[in-house]
Amino acid sequence: MEKEKTVTQRLEALRGEMRRRNIAAYIVPTEDFHSSEYVGEYFKAREYLSGFTGSAGTLLVEGDGAALWTDGRYFLQAREQLKGSGITLMKSGQPDVPTLPDYLAEKLGEGEVIGFDGRCVTGAFVKRLQDKTRHKQITFYGGEDLAGLVWPERPSLPARPVWELSVEYAGLTREEKLAKVREQLEKKGADAFLTTALDEIAWLLNLRGDDVKNTPVFLSYLLLSQNSAALCAQGSAVSEDIRLKLEQAGVILYPYEDIEERLALLPAKTRLLADHRRVSYRLLQAIPEGVERLSEESPIERLKAVKTPQERAGIQSAHVKDGVAVTRFMHWLKTHVGKETITEMSAAQKLEEFRAEMEGYLGPSFDPIVAYGPHGAVVHYEATPETDAVMRAEGLCLADTGGHYKEGTTDVTRTIALGRVTEEEKRAYTLVLKGHLRLGAARFPEGVCGQNLDVLAREPLWQEGLDYNHGTGHGVGCLLSVHEGPQSFRWRITKDASCVPLEEGMILSNEPGFYLDGQFGVRHENLELVRKGEQTAWGQFLYLEPLTMAPFDRDAIETALLTEEERKWLNDYHREVYRTLAPHLAQEEQNWLREATAAEKV
Amino acid sequence: MEKEKTVTQRLEALRGEMRRRNIAAYIVPTEDFHSSEYVGEYFKAREYLSGFTGSAGTLLVEGDGAALWTDGRYFLQAREQLKGSGITLMKSGQPDVPTLPDYLAEKLGEGEVIGFDGRCVTGAFVKRLQDKTRHKQITFYGGEDLAGLVWPERPSLPARPVWELSVEYAGLTREEKLAKVREQLEKKGADAFLTTALDEIAWLLNLRGDDVKNTPVFLSYLLLSQNSAALCAQGSAVSEDIRLKLEQAGVILYPYEDIEERLALLPAKTRLLADHRRVSYRLLQAIPEGVERLSEESPIERLKAVKTPQERAGIQSAHVKDGVAVTRFMHWLKTHVGKETITEMSAAQKLEEFRAEMEGYLGPSFDPIVAYGPHGAVVHYEATPETDAVMRAEGLCLADTGGHYKEGTTDVTRTIALGRVTEEEKRAYTLVLKGHLRLGAARFPEGVCGQNLDVLAREPLWQEGLDYNHGTGHGVGCLLSVHEGPQSFRWRITKDASCVPLEEGMILSNEPGFYLDGQFGVRHENLELVRKGEQTAWGQFLYLEPLTMAPFDRDAIETALLTEEERKWLNDYHREVYRTLAPHLAQEEQNWLREATAAEKV
Repeated sequence: MEKEKTVTQRLEALRGEMRRRNIAAYIVPTEDFHSSEYVGEYFKAREYLSGFTGSAGTLLVEGDGAALWTDGRYFLQAREQLKGSGITLMKSGQPDVPTLPDYLAEKLGEGEVIGFDGRCVTGAFVKRLQDKTRHKQITFYGGEDLAGLVWPERPSLPARPVWELSVEYAGLTREEKLAKVREQLEKKGADAFLTTALDEIAWLLNLRGDDVKNTPVFLSYLLLSQNSAALCAQGSAVSEDIRLKLEQAGVILYPYEDIEERLALLPAKTRLLADHRRVSYRLLQAIPEGVERLSEESPIERLKAVKTPQERAGIQSAHVKDGVAVTRFMHWLKTHVGKETITEMSAAQKLEEFRAEMEGYLGPSFDPIVAYGPHGAVVHYEATPETDAVMRAEGLCLADTGGHYKEGTTDVTRTIALGRVTEEEKRAYTLVLKGHLRLGAARFPEGVCGQNLDVLAREPLWQEGLDYNHGTGHGVGCLLSVHEGPQSFRWRITKDASCVPLEEGMILSNEPGFYLDGQFGVRHENLELVRKGEQTAWGQFLYLEPLTMAPFDRDAIETALLTEEERKWLNDYHREVYRTLAPHLAQEEQNWLREATAAEKV
Repeated sequence: MEKEKTVTQRLEALRGEMRRRNIAAYIVPTEDFHSSEYVGEYFKAREYLSGFTGSAGTLLVEGDGAALWTDGRYFLQAREQLKGSGITLMKSGQPDVPTLPDYLAEKLGEGEVIGFDGRCVTGAFVKRLQDKTRHKQITFYGGEDLAGLVWPERPSLPARPVWELSVEYAGLTREEKLAKVREQLEKKGADAFLTTALDEIAWLLNLRGDDVKNTPVFLSYLLLSQNSAALCAQGSAVSEDIRLKLEQAGVILYPYEDIEERLALLPAKTRLLADHRRVSYRLLQAIPEGVERLSEESPIERLKAVKTPQERAGIQSAHVKDGVAVTRFMHWLKTHVGKETITEMSAAQKLEEFRAEMEGYLGPSFDPIVAYGPHGAVVHYEATPETDAVMRAEGLCLADTGGHYKEGTTDVTRTIALGRVTEEEKRAYTLVLKGHLRLGAARFPEGVCGQNLDVLAREPLWQEGLDYNHGTGHGVGCLLSVHEGPQSFRWRITKDASCVPLEEGMILSNEPGFYLDGQFGVRHENLELVRKGEQTAWGQFLYLEPLTMAPFDRDAIETALLTEEERKWLNDYHREVYRTLAPHLAQEEQNWLREATAAEKV
């Protein structure tokens, strides 16, 4: 048996392939063919070639060197893992570090060739590269996966069974959804529509799968017109029963690899909608010359964001189960810490066990963040055996976790006091809570978007010159991706990012935070359902209803910092949490929850 | 002497001119050649032809009819004034009323001609017309002012003396300003720049005039390149001394009418920046074919918005004077109402007298709004002899007024209790005050724009299902237009409207309101200066400092509705008002102000 190659040997093999094709620089991103948030083992070429295992990073291999761009979460890890590889670490976002396109624009010579697997980069990414390197007449080679050529042990593509989501959960049949999308296409003046987003295809067809970590979707492409629908997916994953049902809805199954062929068959003058920010460079290249391209937001994105009544009911029921699991976990953690060895990883495992006990639980909706003490200040912390901290009966533990249940998806953060907490921790905990409560209590007329409301969550921190460097909230899929658009809570208004008015039935997370480097982190997160309130002479008003049901740890609240209104909001929420969860809890847990949700007095 | 013509005769005369030129529909807007907010007598062709005297409206004359579009402020007045004219009233914004372009697109026949004075409509306006009527091959005739041809008694163009604003007020010499604008042009890749905005030209050249009502500017156009500057203005208005000083700064004076000729001389391939949302159709037509057009925001707009330290100091000093006048007015009104006959118009006159007593006062910065009782609910109410209400010693009087002083410009609204006020009035007054105080107390990092903060002013109303149908605040010029961009407080985020981050030195009004049709209106307005606060690990923070110094009438406050924070903000502000104004007041006024600014207790 051949010994496993070193990173240096792997890079040399790739350089050999590059030389044979006269490629000066080869880009290996962390992407699958669908711009998915998580990528499966098959797609980890960047990890194979660099040795760096973080979830984000782009490798650039040149004839005489290599560089890896990654973000602040991974600076330490990348430094360790890249040691001895000859790969330069490029710290994205640091003042003197160029972006990959800027670096290439500077470094490459006149007329040189940039290579990449055109299926793993979006059209928009290549457009940016083109814009930056135009002055040097750079050309692009995106037709071949060179990394694949030098990776003999590459895992195969996943092809787990596709399953059907019944309409009692989805609320709309696939026929109804297809009709809605076709109506939108007509409005946009499009004859055909290509989507490669796995959650959009799963939503549209009421199908689910298990090909992507933390996301119950399946590898596929969809090409839709007014009178035809081609689903390109792995035949081995789709049962005959589902294939027939799809056919009844007018959806014909083709092999996964056939998408380029399907595109090539589009007649001239077809107006094809394909969002070049999402669709891969290679597929965009496969569109025949005579086809007119509309690069607009997918019409599915907004349809999917507004949950059906059945989805809302399912999600609410999932949140009761999830609340029971999280409450049990909080009770267990607070009563066991310091008495037995509990680490970040073992605590995450315990919470997973509490969730797994709930009926209909399918698995985590994202990699759990259970971060103790200073680790709480690392926004996307993920404990590894090397960092796994033992918890003591003091300080704060930040737990940001979520699950998929057959009725819906959850995402919740609680910051838990494990014993004594400092005045500073209490103060930060309470300021963040004030923001969370204020945003949660917002009432606003139709037309208002997340960018208008974000300040409500931040103002208590801003008043003290404090802030957090992330958005306040994201959309959440229903048994799909835990992060979805188009709506969000954030304050930056950019030309590109659309401001999407909130609508009844949308779900957003409400998760302000505060992080003090090397000391502690606080984040409070509920999912909120947008609901219709009263209609007055001034418009139709909307409000937010918390879906998440779990107590905010009162042990870390500095009550004096809460206004009367804020105390009322907190007490009302806690009353609802107790009312909802108590019937599902054992007596001891119930007693604990009663105290944990007791009213804050002045 | 010929008898004055009736509206019908005037319209017939215009139709005669239209027939001679084969024009099917002629548009007469309410605009001068500069998209100014107010238009002078010379430009009131719409009023001459229709008999309608309101400040906003567009007349459309067809071969066999005529229609006038105006907004909700003027529905009643227009109905009265159009009686017997044969002109149909089109109520803009009402559900079944088409816009002017939609109406024309529907009504006109294939290949017909639309006429207008191309100097009084913007390029963007004509573009919208073109887009709507393209399917009918409509053509446009914008080279002649037909209304002028049938208006023998037309007043002449104003040409009041241009005067120089000394650098001790402006803070930057015209040479420095020209250099800054040229630097911006270079950044935008423009070789030349055309501006027709009178406030921009006045700002750039440190000159002022008196050609437009309420706005100390002068009729002019400016064509600027890196090495030349042509000012087209009326020679009779510019003294020899100023002409020489302009020449020293490289600015050559040409006749006002010569702007088209100057544009015609632009060499081919010049990249000319001219905002087609502001520049007239006719001037855009005058640009030679070979010139490349950049339709971008004028670089002056942002430069002008950030006040120099000298401007800030001047504006602050103007606000002390203005505060003295407004405080005297409030004291006078509250102590005299019911004892003598005071009407809306006489009260406005009294306030004007108080202002005129202050040194350096130049005149009103906009038409004063003094609205008693139900008139307060009419957002842009302007009392006329027909509507002028007598005030009684009860209810609310809304006074939104402002002035130009030689150091700067003010704009202030106070809602004054004239005696007994109802519970409903008090509640509304206090909710609006809460919003005003919350926005005024905002702290936020650099990058935040008005659209992010607007919710702070509205949330107290939104919580009750209430709102107001106007923006919360606008930029304010320094001895220029009282309304200027680009920054504002509003919540609607549209694709067109840019979101402009607030910067130290910008000024915005903070003026939430509440209006109950047929009953009363409340508005509270301070001007706020954006100031730099502390720099922390989370960024450079900014805050708002009130420029306006006048008490909020405590007689209408429902103290119990204020939170502890809000009471503190109000008391702090009132303490500052007293400290600032008291030294300038007579003993009796001082005594009154001490009580009027006393701390609110629980």
